[in-house]
Amino acid sequence: MTDLLSVDDIRRAAQTLDGKARKTPLLESPLLNQRLGCRLLIKPEMLQVTGSFKFRGAFNRVSQIPQSDIHHGVVAFSSGNHAQGVALAAQMMGIPARIVMPGDAPLVKINNTRAYGAQVVFYDRKTDDREAICDELARKHGATLIRPYDDPAIIAGQGTVGLEIADDLRRMGIHANMVLVPCGGGGLVAGTALTMAAESPETNVYSVEPEDFDDTARSLVAGNRLKNAPHGRSMCDALLSPEPGKLTFGLNQRLLAGGLAVSDAHVANAMRIAFDDLKLISEPGGAVALAAALSGAVKTDGQTVVAVMSGGNVDAGTFRDVLGAAHLT
Amino acid sequence: MTDLLSVDDIRRAAQTLDGKARKTPLLESPLLNQRLGCRLLIKPEMLQVTGSFKFRGAFNRVSQIPQSDIHHGVVAFSSGNHAQGVALAAQMMGIPARIVMPGDAPLVKINNTRAYGAQVVFYDRKTDDREAICDELARKHGATLIRPYDDPAIIAGQGTVGLEIADDLRRMGIHANMVLVPCGGGGLVAGTALTMAAESPETNVYSVEPEDFDDTARSLVAGNRLKNAPHGRSMCDALLSPEPGKLTFGLNQRLLAGGLAVSDAHVANAMRIAFDDLKLISEPGGAVALAAALSGAVKTDGQTVVAVMSGGNVDAGTFRDVLGAAHLT
Repeated sequence: MTDLLSVDDIRRAAQTLDGKARKTPLLESPLLNQRLGCRLLIKPEMLQVTGSFKFRGAFNRVSQIPQSDIHHGVVAFSSGNHAQGVALAAQMMGIPARIVMPGDAPLVKINNTRAYGAQVVFYDRKTDDREAICDELARKHGATLIRPYDDPAIIAGQGTVGLEIADDLRRMGIHANMVLVPCGGGGLVAGTALTMAAESPETNVYSVEPEDFDDTARSLVAGNRLKNAPHGRSMCDALLSPEPGKLTFGLNQRLLAGGLAVSDAHVANAMRIAFDDLKLISEPGGAVALAAALSGAVKTDGQTVVAVMSGGNVDAGTFRDVLGAAHLT
Repeated sequence: MTDLLSVDDIRRAAQTLDGKARKTPLLESPLLNQRLGCRLLIKPEMLQVTGSFKFRGAFNRVSQIPQSDIHHGVVAFSSGNHAQGVALAAQMMGIPARIVMPGDAPLVKINNTRAYGAQVVFYDRKTDDREAICDELARKHGATLIRPYDDPAIIAGQGTVGLEIADDLRRMGIHANMVLVPCGGGGLVAGTALTMAAESPETNVYSVEPEDFDDTARSLVAGNRLKNAPHGRSMCDALLSPEPGKLTFGLNQRLLAGGLAVSDAHVANAMRIAFDDLKLISEPGGAVALAAALSGAVKTDGQTVVAVMSGGNVDAGTFRDVLGAAHLT
């Protein structure tokens, strides 16, 4: 596993992404810190190009396609954030992209994927096999499949989030006790954990998942990869992966301090806090790490906590519902 | 006027604010640029401490109070953003703050001003004289009045917005054709224009106001300060100043390329675009410059345009209404 990917791959990814991806800042709110009794630093990846961290891994992976294959383009399956990341990366490289998306993906994600010039192919989340559809498209067009997380180049790209966090903490003279990272397939948290292990080994990194989709948390306890029950529900459309990735779990098992899970109510509350105190739009899946910090899923009193907010691609209707719901205290 | 304030005062303000105020980035959206046919760079001051640029001027001014007076504290009148800026600046200096606010200010602004430890005194926007209430409070407590815009130290603090814009443009190797700046009393646009005149003299700086509160635009044309009609209405609560400031207008008359005005419908549309494409929460007054770029109030085709978004302190109910309204095209 260590041979497969090291922090040097992440440093190389940062060079590849220089001038392409945005370096997002670390933000904090004095009022929120005061209320929480901890120092909370937010890594706002909704401000990343395409509105989520996914562009980092996608661009890094697409840029590694051999010259002989690249003109055949790329295919990917995604509920929407990886879709946009791959679509924009392909557009920037001048190659075609075909993206397999669930028919019930948020409209903003579908529309933006098309706006980046990709062809969108829909599948039914309940009945179709998205990987089979993808494989068929890749075969037919000679295109390269860009996996959403279980690929070293993807994990390395997402790991640049951790590199920027570590650089900013060092520049600010701050030691972070923990970094909380949203987790679907586990690429972002694996890359971030790999970076922090090299740059700040005493900082604990936790994955955060929605309840019912806490496969990584349960797998970390079990010591092997467990699937989610088939009929779970969550508002976090970006984090509905069926089970941990093989590569990502190998890294996460070695590197994470633990896995946390949060309810939809805590996610909605975190989205509202991001609105009130941070002036940031978070999508549900992007808010799970903040939700963990706010909900007591992990003890934060007196600690310095970094929460990665992974994306902001949420439809206006969903966001209105969140703003209209009653506040948790 | 030149003697009163120079770009060196703004550079000194930047030193005073170093480590206190946040350096906000320049953001852009490839999709938005594509749709607009221009390069639009956003200066997101809703990400500033207290959720608006006002902390910059407030902290710079409060830090200049002589040692003999400072323990008597400060007073200010404000619809809410200057209130929060002064309250946090006073809290950071360990001195008392009394803030005179209109009873109909957004709840988020009232609550946050109190959360920063200030005492809030309400007045009626229609019947009371807020400056008289302030003067009485200042006299009674020996406190220093922190004016919202017509003060060289305030203008210098707000001008650091322009300094960061100029620095980032230089670093990115970009020449901006114009900078669009929200305008109430005119402190932010005056400070920004003073900076750009020194750092990038060929860049045009425009003030942007709500229709019915376009006193600066009309005054620039008339060549002297004109008041707004008494019964105007606008959703831009932060920009409802009665007339241009004396100092600010002196600077703006010399430095601005012109004054623009936008309707509430264009403001709401800009808030929606900020949600969809930038993942930023803007309050109505914070969105007027973006609204000017989107509405055709100024010709932007093929240009590089910087739009300052000045704040994000908006109540959830207002934001929900904006998201629920029909899109302009």
